[in-house]
Amino acid sequence: MGEWKQYLSENQTKHLEQWKDFLRIPSVSTMSEHRGDMERAAHFLAEHLRGVGLEHVRVMSTAQELENVRTSTAQQQEYMSGFETSQQGRDSTSHPVVYADWLHAQGRPTVLIYGHYDVQPAEPLELWQSPPFEPEIRDGMLYGRGSSDNKGQIFMHLQAMEALLKTAGELPVNIKLVIEGEEEIGSPNLPAFLISHQDMLQADLLVISDTAMLEADQPAICYGLRGLLSFQLDVDGPKQDLASGFYGGAVHNPVHALAQLVASMHTPDGAVAIEGFYDGVNEISEDERQVIASLPQDDAALASHLGVPQLYGEKGYTTLERRWVRPTLEVNGIYGGYQGEGEKTIIPADAHAKISCRLVPNQHPDRIFSMIQAHIERHTPPGVRVTVTQTGAGLPYVTPHDHPAVQLAAQALEQAFEAQVSFIRAGGSIPIVETFATQFGLPIVLIGFALPTANAHGPNEHMSLSHMEKGTRALCRYWELLGQQG
Amino acid sequence: MGEWKQYLSENQTKHLEQWKDFLRIPSVSTMSEHRGDMERAAHFLAEHLRGVGLEHVRVMSTAQELENVRTSTAQQQEYMSGFETSQQGRDSTSHPVVYADWLHAQGRPTVLIYGHYDVQPAEPLELWQSPPFEPEIRDGMLYGRGSSDNKGQIFMHLQAMEALLKTAGELPVNIKLVIEGEEEIGSPNLPAFLISHQDMLQADLLVISDTAMLEADQPAICYGLRGLLSFQLDVDGPKQDLASGFYGGAVHNPVHALAQLVASMHTPDGAVAIEGFYDGVNEISEDERQVIASLPQDDAALASHLGVPQLYGEKGYTTLERRWVRPTLEVNGIYGGYQGEGEKTIIPADAHAKISCRLVPNQHPDRIFSMIQAHIERHTPPGVRVTVTQTGAGLPYVTPHDHPAVQLAAQALEQAFEAQVSFIRAGGSIPIVETFATQFGLPIVLIGFALPTANAHGPNEHMSLSHMEKGTRALCRYWELLGQQG
Repeated sequence: MGEWKQYLSENQTKHLEQWKDFLRIPSVSTMSEHRGDMERAAHFLAEHLRGVGLEHVRVMSTAQELENVRTSTAQQQEYMSGFETSQQGRDSTSHPVVYADWLHAQGRPTVLIYGHYDVQPAEPLELWQSPPFEPEIRDGMLYGRGSSDNKGQIFMHLQAMEALLKTAGELPVNIKLVIEGEEEIGSPNLPAFLISHQDMLQADLLVISDTAMLEADQPAICYGLRGLLSFQLDVDGPKQDLASGFYGGAVHNPVHALAQLVASMHTPDGAVAIEGFYDGVNEISEDERQVIASLPQDDAALASHLGVPQLYGEKGYTTLERRWVRPTLEVNGIYGGYQGEGEKTIIPADAHAKISCRLVPNQHPDRIFSMIQAHIERHTPPGVRVTVTQTGAGLPYVTPHDHPAVQLAAQALEQAFEAQVSFIRAGGSIPIVETFATQFGLPIVLIGFALPTANAHGPNEHMSLSHMEKGTRALCRYWELLGQQG
Repeated sequence: MGEWKQYLSENQTKHLEQWKDFLRIPSVSTMSEHRGDMERAAHFLAEHLRGVGLEHVRVMSTAQELENVRTSTAQQQEYMSGFETSQQGRDSTSHPVVYADWLHAQGRPTVLIYGHYDVQPAEPLELWQSPPFEPEIRDGMLYGRGSSDNKGQIFMHLQAMEALLKTAGELPVNIKLVIEGEEEIGSPNLPAFLISHQDMLQADLLVISDTAMLEADQPAICYGLRGLLSFQLDVDGPKQDLASGFYGGAVHNPVHALAQLVASMHTPDGAVAIEGFYDGVNEISEDERQVIASLPQDDAALASHLGVPQLYGEKGYTTLERRWVRPTLEVNGIYGGYQGEGEKTIIPADAHAKISCRLVPNQHPDRIFSMIQAHIERHTPPGVRVTVTQTGAGLPYVTPHDHPAVQLAAQALEQAFEAQVSFIRAGGSIPIVETFATQFGLPIVLIGFALPTANAHGPNEHMSLSHMEKGTRALCRYWELLGQQG
């Protein structure tokens, strides 16, 4: 031990340049214009994995996996049938999985590592201080789309493996890597892919680094993720824009109808007003309330950091409870009619909203989507036509945190960061986690290294270089500790 | 008489080409990128007026007119003070007025003709069957932005004057022309311009052709226009877009706040819910109800023409009453957050709406704007900041229709179209009409030649070539009839 530490510090510049090259590829999975960049990112990654010393490196298509799940059991068939609805209505966008392994640590545990090389869109570009796909270092932070979510955190794993392989010539544990390209669009094809390749993916433990730490230099292990349901609302009125003077008063304005529909989705108290939305949602236990309340939280400081007059949300819950444990419904975008300079006195022909829900245990995305459809049907005014289309889904996940693999991870983190580990939940979603949990029966360790203020999906996303360094060391240490148990 | 008829028919092709050249200039007053085109349109028009045989042709700046109104009376000063608020908050956009006259009809009436050479934005361009600034004839209609509103109708006046001057060598009446470039942005500088140049603009009668006929080949005289108030609503939340997983539940989403504000502006019955909005608005008289009810109106046919499942609007009024006599509030555009392909799970940093009201007598735009400010203040939720900015204003206008000049216009229309004239109101606004009425004390004749289905502010705006021809003849005839009275 220790040799890898020196290797890491000697190769810091090389690693930084490799990481930057990875970040320069605009692998935006949701936009078809970036399909070529997605391929490029997958092959860049595969090439890099070979350089690290991993084996069986493959770029694998995820298309038609749903049709391919023929070898699976009846239980798996039933599980997969739940995904058919989710896939309806979405474009047949599939992006390859990059697989690699190193399996020579006989008698030692096998760790499956999951990550994703796709990123969120970078728009609005004008809010970035430096271009999103031109990584730039400022004040100890590397700025760029994907720096935290998730290319940076994948790279920490690859640096750790490279350091171990190049110095000791072997890894302390067996490793399998699955790095996908559809996470930011809800992993539509991955469940089928995983089940199709269940033999190849057998492991003792799943490790994911795609969450945040508690604060700068305060490591954390995440024990709960929210699920996701996203959908688009399209309101159609007249077949083309109408002069508001000429027709104002004669037809229902699609923007008014959309505003009414959006407004109908929340109560004045900030709760979600979709009928049945909270059915089956467990109240937070007293234990968990106390754990969460014990974590540092300062509403005034957060409000000031985010630039809002005050925080806001569902009554009866603290800010962390609302962010981690309670489900939400948020409009991600709205548009209709004239948006240019000055004015244009029209009744727009149509209006649109992109909406997503964060879900908690016992909220199945398909069931919630049906409730939303029913709600919209009930609230659609007579003069317009409304269409609602599901665009993504992922199940929520909560794990017990007393598993030995979790305890070892905590130990590795404490050694590398020289600070106590907090157990936290995350408001975000990693859609595939639930499939790993229920179909693979694997214990899952979520150790993330992003700053809570990293602005993962917004402009100026960044990664702390200090977290990068200490996190990589924590991972080397984690494999050592796990290997000693084996 | 009659010579001008032959002249018009001989010069039809030449006139059509000149009109098309005028339409090719994208004189969009609201967009600063078209400032050069606005200048070009003004000078094109001036050159054309010289060719027609008009005199004293001038392209006159409207900038700083508000400061120039020094020579006016105390009553005028007071009137102008009302415009200062309307001008605050708008860009200092001013576009020149084109003036011309012909004043050799001694002892005959002087007619002031008002029109505008600016047009509405053409977006969304993809909905145009032929490009908006490449005029094209299909099935007896000329398609192009401004073909009806208002370049086409200006051109009818110019053709009529040219035909009279080139054949008789004189006009039967004195003519003054004021053609402005700020109508589509609410004529912010024109009131001051008119009052500054009141001596130059002395006349016996104001004629405007900027309204529609009742139906194809059914001429109409308009006796009422709605006023206009336009404003922009800006909702600001967090200082940048936030990941909805990470912060969902912690802050108020600006799109939700905007939807709530927009939804709060109407009652479930389709009436405007701004407190005090209807104060002082007169109920429709029984007489007028009967006149309007006697006009052809078919709700099912209109709904089908517009492509909506059914018409919609304030309860207790017929469709024509809602379009002509009742005030409205319409969102012209809404935007905020992600609008691209696929999904982006963010809480948007801000959200915006462009809104305009059509006003009726006793609704002063400034008073209505104050009510809207108060309403928004009352309904703004705590977690966001809201700004409301007035962007345009114009007063409503209703005239008695028994004036001899109106009766002569009806006679000229009936002769040219060989059809009965209807007296109608219009839902649209010509902001400057009220200034002419109250400050110049002029009788106003609104004879418009657009099709009610011309789609003036939308895509595929068009003008009937048959209306163009008959309307030009009606104008020649009108000046003859007026001259015989003189």
